[in-house]
Amino acid sequence: MAGTDHDKAADWAGQVPAMILVRPQMGENIGAAARAMWNFGIDRMRLVAPRDGWPNEKAVAMASGAGRVLDQVMLRDTVEEATADLNFVFATTARPRDLVKDCYTPEEAMAEARARMAQGQKVGVMFGPERAGLENSDIVRADAIITVPVNPAFASLNLAQCVLLVAYEWMRQQGAPEREFPERAEGQVIHALTDHLEEALDRAHFFWPEDKRPSMIANLRNMISRMPLTDGDVRIWHGMIRALTRRQEK
Amino acid sequence: MAGTDHDKAADWAGQVPAMILVRPQMGENIGAAARAMWNFGIDRMRLVAPRDGWPNEKAVAMASGAGRVLDQVMLRDTVEEATADLNFVFATTARPRDLVKDCYTPEEAMAEARARMAQGQKVGVMFGPERAGLENSDIVRADAIITVPVNPAFASLNLAQCVLLVAYEWMRQQGAPEREFPERAEGQVIHALTDHLEEALDRAHFFWPEDKRPSMIANLRNMISRMPLTDGDVRIWHGMIRALTRRQEK
Repeated sequence: MAGTDHDKAADWAGQVPAMILVRPQMGENIGAAARAMWNFGIDRMRLVAPRDGWPNEKAVAMASGAGRVLDQVMLRDTVEEATADLNFVFATTARPRDLVKDCYTPEEAMAEARARMAQGQKVGVMFGPERAGLENSDIVRADAIITVPVNPAFASLNLAQCVLLVAYEWMRQQGAPEREFPERAEGQVIHALTDHLEEALDRAHFFWPEDKRPSMIANLRNMISRMPLTDGDVRIWHGMIRALTRRQEK
Repeated sequence: MAGTDHDKAADWAGQVPAMILVRPQMGENIGAAARAMWNFGIDRMRLVAPRDGWPNEKAVAMASGAGRVLDQVMLRDTVEEATADLNFVFATTARPRDLVKDCYTPEEAMAEARARMAQGQKVGVMFGPERAGLENSDIVRADAIITVPVNPAFASLNLAQCVLLVAYEWMRQQGAPEREFPERAEGQVIHALTDHLEEALDRAHFFWPEDKRPSMIANLRNMISRMPLTDGDVRIWHGMIRALTRRQEK
């Protein structure tokens, strides 16, 4: 099985961690894992002894759009071979076993993966077969464990979901994307709107009784200043005030 | 459809955000969303007009193990009804639209959700139907948007995966530091204000020309849903609208 045309992932580019599916059973799940990876920019998949051989038509059909991940799969017979060129390997497993091993959250693991890879190390993450998960003999080959913190009463992540969460954390650790804020009108635009509204309300005898007037105006101004208004919003408000008071002014 | 036995989620416990599936199509996806939620301890699901009605056998079959989520579903006909008792609603949408709206990552959103809920606010997250996603008329009812930062070249998260990532972030943010938020009116209070304003503007022939009417109303709703209004603010707005339209009505 080893040494096929599908070994392009061996030509390690180093920008992304390798996602290693160990003895996956259903082709559909391999395809779904490929989609999950590529959603977050990871295109390096390795397969260890897939049950139904390789290539797999069902995997290709399911991966549609993420075919590039499957095109460059590295295929190996054993975990040992699939991790031979890697400097650091995580094993995902639902529960800590009887092994002494560092245990990471996906967040911690991908932060460390980024740090290691920035120094030129090659990092991989192993995922076990559906249902059974990784065996202890696989896990002992890993440097550390990733455990997703799930509801103790219900832990039922499937293979593609587990890949999804690790890949998501990989992209998330890229350093948070710059936050975008909606545009916002300048103070003078807001003040003019406040004046317009106050005048209209004044003509409608809204600020009454007279001794409450200062606090009512202060409340109104405070409320408007807390509104995240754009220039467009302000134009709408001017229009609304004009519309609502139109007949009054006749 | 409203007012069924399935309204136990209305008896809000406040520990978890409500996951609101808007017009979901396949029962299997509702079940998969329930599993995704319960993996991370969220058992409050709301359904808006599921295509194949409710209850749905396929949803139950798929949810196996997470049946408690489906047992206490709140079922409603409209987004407006499904969000009536909520103080803050996020809309998940792949791309920012032509609407001015604060845009959060899942991480930022769930951190804020925890902080708001720690102060007693009720928070929900809306997810659109498979393929089509939320419509603008749904999004304008939301306070803010959640966009998952995906590979720009391949963004293909399905409904359950999107729910999974938000639920994961909810659990991950456990123990995030406290933040203070001003009080905030419930959705139904905001909806009633919007109705009042729309009626007044309608009588004043504000929504003109007729072909612009839907977009003008959408803009107005979006603008108001972005305003951080308290119950007191809303009372003032009702009073202002009444004052401004008083003479008109004579």
